[in-house]
Amino acid sequence: MVKRKSECPINYSLEIFGDNWTLLIIRDIMFFDKSCYGDFYQSAEGIATNILADRLRFLVSEKILKKLVSPKNKSKFIYRLTKKGIDLMPIVLDLVEWGTKYNRDSFPKEFMTWLRKDKEGLMKHYREKAKISLANLTP
Amino acid sequence: MVKRKSECPINYSLEIFGDNWTLLIIRDIMFFDKSCYGDFYQSAEGIATNILADRLRFLVSEKILKKLVSPKNKSKFIYRLTKKGIDLMPIVLDLVEWGTKYNRDSFPKEFMTWLRKDKEGLMKHYREKAKISLANLTP
Repeated sequence: MVKRKSECPINYSLEIFGDNWTLLIIRDIMFFDKSCYGDFYQSAEGIATNILADRLRFLVSEKILKKLVSPKNKSKFIYRLTKKGIDLMPIVLDLVEWGTKYNRDSFPKEFMTWLRKDKEGLMKHYREKAKISLANLTP
Repeated sequence: MVKRKSECPINYSLEIFGDNWTLLIIRDIMFFDKSCYGDFYQSAEGIATNILADRLRFLVSEKILKKLVSPKNKSKFIYRLTKKGIDLMPIVLDLVEWGTKYNRDSFPKEFMTWLRKDKEGLMKHYREKAKISLANLTP
């Protein structure tokens, strides 16, 4: 078992995804239909291959992502969010809101309009989408 | 100006507090009435002095904290949340909720009961408290 710095729930959360990369991978799966190593590797931030491999392994071990064989290509793996991963959505959206308020941003305009007008509806949509993506691949 | 990895609002947010320590300092100021170097240093997670000094400097430079001379002791500095810092409250509370759901926790019971029953009320209370703490010290 992992020895944590403290039992504070914030500390637990931060030990899991409190690094620059982890939540960016989750963002890509959650909102941008990315699913495999190559997809994440191409993201604007330019994650290094060793860091990407390490973070994916960690997120799978923490049961935030599930690693599955691609149905289209049996030699390829794809990643899906678990329930625990989908539950990170409010945090990710709060980051979008705070980051947009205090810095210019590059999020799709339609997404931002939707988020401002109907956050609950947007969350429901992406939550359902993630659940279906996982269910379609789990035997 | 800081060169960012991308203009994604999530990336911006994570470049600012996407490390294990930054949001723990903010937690301490936001909810546990801590205000000075010695207070943060004593937190359960055991932050190293050089990391603490570095993170405080960074949070001040990003205008998330304001560094002020203590009115009680002119040779001592205290830190207060700015508006930009107070706006991190939804993120911090989402971390509490997610961390509590997936791990045992050590947050005060009364706080957790309040959060579950009336999140808006709790946020209003701590937001006001932070504003007053800052206003009391700003000439």
